[in-house]
Amino acid sequence: MAGPRRDRPWLMRTYAGHSTAESTNELYRRNLAKGQTGLSVAFDLPTQTGYDPDHVLARGEVGRVGVPVAHLGDLRRLFDGIPLAEANTSMTINATAMWLLALYVTAAEEQGADPAALRGTTQNDIVKEYLSRGTHVFPPGPSLRLTTDLVAYGLHHLPRWNPINVCGYHLQEAGATPVQEIAYATATAVGVLDAVRASGQVPPERLGEVVGRLSFFVNAGVRFVEEMCKMRAFARVWDRVTRERYGVADPRQRRFRYGVQVNSLGLTEAQPENNVQRIVLEMLGVTLSRDARARAVQLPAWNEALGLPRPWDQQWSLRIQQVLAEESDLLEYDDLFAGSHVVEATTEAMAAQAWEEIERVLEMGGALAAVESGYLKSELVAAHTRRRARVEAGEERIVGVNCHTATEPSPLTADLDTAILTPDPAAEARVLDELGRWRARRDATAARVALADLRRAAEGTANLMPATLACARAGVTTGEWAEALREVFGEYRAATGVGGAPVTAPAASGPELAAVRRAVAATAAELGVDRLRLLVGKPGLDGHSNGAEQIAVRARDAGFEVVYQGIRLTPEQLAASAVAEDVHCVGLSILSGSHSALVPQVLDLLRAADAGEVPVVVGGIIPPADAAALRSAGVAAVFTPKDFGITEIIGRIVEEIRAAHRLAPPGDQDHTTTAPTNDTTTTDTDTDTAAHSTAHTPIPDPDPDPDPEETTP
Amino acid sequence: MAGPRRDRPWLMRTYAGHSTAESTNELYRRNLAKGQTGLSVAFDLPTQTGYDPDHVLARGEVGRVGVPVAHLGDLRRLFDGIPLAEANTSMTINATAMWLLALYVTAAEEQGADPAALRGTTQNDIVKEYLSRGTHVFPPGPSLRLTTDLVAYGLHHLPRWNPINVCGYHLQEAGATPVQEIAYATATAVGVLDAVRASGQVPPERLGEVVGRLSFFVNAGVRFVEEMCKMRAFARVWDRVTRERYGVADPRQRRFRYGVQVNSLGLTEAQPENNVQRIVLEMLGVTLSRDARARAVQLPAWNEALGLPRPWDQQWSLRIQQVLAEESDLLEYDDLFAGSHVVEATTEAMAAQAWEEIERVLEMGGALAAVESGYLKSELVAAHTRRRARVEAGEERIVGVNCHTATEPSPLTADLDTAILTPDPAAEARVLDELGRWRARRDATAARVALADLRRAAEGTANLMPATLACARAGVTTGEWAEALREVFGEYRAATGVGGAPVTAPAASGPELAAVRRAVAATAAELGVDRLRLLVGKPGLDGHSNGAEQIAVRARDAGFEVVYQGIRLTPEQLAASAVAEDVHCVGLSILSGSHSALVPQVLDLLRAADAGEVPVVVGGIIPPADAAALRSAGVAAVFTPKDFGITEIIGRIVEEIRAAHRLAPPGDQDHTTTAPTNDTTTTDTDTDTAAHSTAHTPIPDPDPDPDPEETTP
Repeated sequence: MAGPRRDRPWLMRTYAGHSTAESTNELYRRNLAKGQTGLSVAFDLPTQTGYDPDHVLARGEVGRVGVPVAHLGDLRRLFDGIPLAEANTSMTINATAMWLLALYVTAAEEQGADPAALRGTTQNDIVKEYLSRGTHVFPPGPSLRLTTDLVAYGLHHLPRWNPINVCGYHLQEAGATPVQEIAYATATAVGVLDAVRASGQVPPERLGEVVGRLSFFVNAGVRFVEEMCKMRAFARVWDRVTRERYGVADPRQRRFRYGVQVNSLGLTEAQPENNVQRIVLEMLGVTLSRDARARAVQLPAWNEALGLPRPWDQQWSLRIQQVLAEESDLLEYDDLFAGSHVVEATTEAMAAQAWEEIERVLEMGGALAAVESGYLKSELVAAHTRRRARVEAGEERIVGVNCHTATEPSPLTADLDTAILTPDPAAEARVLDELGRWRARRDATAARVALADLRRAAEGTANLMPATLACARAGVTTGEWAEALREVFGEYRAATGVGGAPVTAPAASGPELAAVRRAVAATAAELGVDRLRLLVGKPGLDGHSNGAEQIAVRARDAGFEVVYQGIRLTPEQLAASAVAEDVHCVGLSILSGSHSALVPQVLDLLRAADAGEVPVVVGGIIPPADAAALRSAGVAAVFTPKDFGITEIIGRIVEEIRAAHRLAPPGDQDHTTTAPTNDTTTTDTDTDTAAHSTAHTPIPDPDPDPDPEETTP
Repeated sequence: MAGPRRDRPWLMRTYAGHSTAESTNELYRRNLAKGQTGLSVAFDLPTQTGYDPDHVLARGEVGRVGVPVAHLGDLRRLFDGIPLAEANTSMTINATAMWLLALYVTAAEEQGADPAALRGTTQNDIVKEYLSRGTHVFPPGPSLRLTTDLVAYGLHHLPRWNPINVCGYHLQEAGATPVQEIAYATATAVGVLDAVRASGQVPPERLGEVVGRLSFFVNAGVRFVEEMCKMRAFARVWDRVTRERYGVADPRQRRFRYGVQVNSLGLTEAQPENNVQRIVLEMLGVTLSRDARARAVQLPAWNEALGLPRPWDQQWSLRIQQVLAEESDLLEYDDLFAGSHVVEATTEAMAAQAWEEIERVLEMGGALAAVESGYLKSELVAAHTRRRARVEAGEERIVGVNCHTATEPSPLTADLDTAILTPDPAAEARVLDELGRWRARRDATAARVALADLRRAAEGTANLMPATLACARAGVTTGEWAEALREVFGEYRAATGVGGAPVTAPAASGPELAAVRRAVAATAAELGVDRLRLLVGKPGLDGHSNGAEQIAVRARDAGFEVVYQGIRLTPEQLAASAVAEDVHCVGLSILSGSHSALVPQVLDLLRAADAGEVPVVVGGIIPPADAAALRSAGVAAVFTPKDFGITEIIGRIVEEIRAAHRLAPPGDQDHTTTAPTNDTTTTDTDTDTAAHSTAHTPIPDPDPDPDPEETTP
């Protein structure tokens, strides 16, 4: 009955890294001892964006969302005791991908490994950084050159390495539908392959090898049947592109090879234990179909929406994979969907729609042109806005968030502040000390020479990898490598996409938005201004701008004049903008966990500029203790992922503006909205009533209509 | 792309009940308020086996594994405030099914409900009680009469009620392979339908209606692809049987309708959080395929292998269903496997094998004859023995048990004794008080008359339901109803199946069993006896005998003379057997949670009989605090589901016998086995070594071979 040969399990990874190279190394060894079969390095934002830990923009970000790697010494310690010749390492690194790969290759050579044996992946996809993740550094042209240089170098020297992992992942997080995810990721891959071909670094007869090493990094949400069909459609589209556009004859080189991190976007802060079953279903989307099965899977932890996962949380996500691969019988069968009428029809329709969208993008000049024109970003923001509206309207149901909200107290989150990992606050200081010692100990002349060579290479057209490897060996730091290239290439600010989002017409919007719009207008009139002004800002290095963008779009639709200048601004820049634009409220969005360091700076700077009365609200993944501290420091309101009602958030902002100006709460209740509760205690809301009531308990209808018992707070 | 019509979600239930009718009613109301769409009543063992709470066999069992229902007053309180006309209630009740249904119908009528509107299911399958679950009361003939009387009464008076839920569930728990589960459940259904047809209570032209209301209750393990194919094969076999054997022309009446409780057998005590992903995969086996989708699903809680789940644990299992039904897109599609080559071939092969086995059973005279001959029980015990051997050999991998045993300390089980529900110890006394008041208040004459009428009906051939309904209305108790029928029908002890299990030949067994066998022989020689004797006993009413049977078979294979007299013996009977047979060890197995009440009684009785030196070991679902108390009371060893090595357990029994006789531990290490650790603290075994080692950390091979890092304790 079963297939002729049991399928090999996919590589099992955990995206991990924090604090310091030493503590991350300890974590990696633990994970390997538990049966993890691949490593996945999370780098901190300074490393991803090319700043040393002591740069002003790195304040509060060092070791926060990943491990800091400032030089070869850090890389050595990160993999101490782990034989890189045997490892399979995924590095989520893009703008500085070439640099981190150079450090990795150098450390591996020091261990005695042959570079030709190294296996792993550098993400190295800059397009999705522009569109969603925001850790880009250089303008599109030079960024693409770094990408193609790495790909070409890989072909000649690192034949088992996947030089690029084209990301659908972050497109979905930015709002992409499955069809858009396929189309834009494929268009990105085409852009890279076209550039590689045009660079002259690869003989035409070896282009198939480049194609064969290109891999994808996709997302998988809880709509797992559609996701499974997406993977099959992706494979079909990729087979066609590589055959038709690049003439690849060997079917193995045309295979759609991909790794996955399942969807973090859909994980909830409310009743977070339910994330476990979401993660399992998401994993199934990429493993159920043998013909389109992921090569590598990494699963988030159930408590990612609360903060940093602990080792036990990560172990659980590994065990989720192991139970599927080792206890279940999935790997024993040939493809379960070969011949399936439903899956074939769904796949074919999706592939056809994706193909149309790919052609549209190619007609615009390809993925990079569509980034620069803002087309891709606006499409994504619009799709995201539509999805948020479906959730707010209850058309898309999220258990614990917009339905089934009644809950028993959870022992998993009884103490929310210990249900996550608290990074060692002394780690940043140790990293800075260590960096100082590294700079003092190295051969300063050698470093200077290597950097000069790098600048010269960048000014010319040579492949940048050899000069980068020389920098790695000479003890150059991450910030120095990136700074040298910034001097030559310049920097880039990507489109925000906010302007292009569809405007919700006043007549078409729901009563809740209409009420907020009236409150905005009334408050502006009372303050004697034309319009209320809101500054939306993302301090620090975090580039996850989807949430901030949705707030900006909705505030605009509610009648605000919105000032949003994009990501990566210093507290000083934001405070200056707030004063210059004379805004009525400042909204800060930080998902990197650096809120405790950055928000108080903004407050202090506003007070110093005599704008201390402007209310500041903050959104992000903020544990309750941090939220309390921010409110004590003067923050008017803290929003976390549990506050899914964007219109409610805007309503709350209006209330804070009124309170700051000592305006009376509007008498007409239509003019206000209910403030979202920021009470993060998990409470048992319905059950007491139910238990003591003498009235009949209604039997829920099995149809999935919103249950009035559940949606009333 | 999606199917033409979104499928209705299945009924979502939670198997629940404990302590008293009042506290269970409160639990039901909470569950309904959280979106549960059906009820599933767990009755306690006295109720299931027809004893009043004050019967000697009920000691320690009242309100333990379910709710006690001793009379109509309990049933009223159980559903207080829950409109039975709207509810859909599953009752796991077999020997006393007719009685509980009579109470339910009476209480519903008192609420004003029309019996014709009542929806739900009585399990009412006695065959699997004989084979596995052990709550049978009467011999096969009268039991089958009760079943057919209920079915016939249902046809005429309760047209929306499923009068029988033929159980594959407990067959799988007893060891059945998927093919056996299909075959024996189908053979049972045939036995019931044949009996209904022969009873003359159903006009031939209405037999199709009986067939159409017959439903199944199946199991689903973690091998979810096979399970999904099993459901499809089941439907195919059932369609054929009902067409060919009963001539049912209407395809709707031939449909395979089934409910599910997914597998509790596969849930582990070790790293119990991993049970969440197991439960999700098991749920998929019965929901993935729309053409063979379950009508009703109830999921166990993650901590079932630890003890009684709390309300939060049950909520989580409900949310697992809701996320699949409401967040995922599964219900939007037509059947995903229609046309699938792999699924079609697997299903067809399974259906063909099941058909062969059905024919074999029918040639033996049908399911009941195969029960009475012992054939079915021996087949199941043998299949179970083979499965246990695969687990012990590591061929069948169980994460956290025989592989991947290293673990971080789990916050979910940091305090194991609060990670489960502790039933109110005062509940049993309240139930007894209440029963006394009920007996005092009722019309004693009316009750006596109703019981006399019941006995007379039982002696004749009339349908027993009307007399049973009259008993319900007259205030008769559960024990009285069952006792009246026991007087007429007699009682039944089912085959243990232990004698028929395949003997492991000394030469064929592994080195571990050979070592234990040598230790048994050496100890017998030192004690000057021919063979060591072990009494395996199941005190109390718990009939889950699979574990005890496996211990008995393995002890026999290790050279013990095993005394196993089956289930449901009093402590007095067990102590008397131990003395009469002059055994060297007493092994007690209790899965109902009544260990704290029953085990000390056995110890006291042994001491009173001057046999206090005989070591007593206990196996069951025993929380750590209870285990410590049992050891203090004199129990030599406590085994829980974590102790999966049966041979190890036998080895430990030999050690305890040696210790009791003050024999020196054998010098030859080959003659002993490592005692299983009973330390239930979740410990971090490998990680410290990994973290501090300077040696290279090996990269696990992605092939699922046992990893030496993981299997060394």
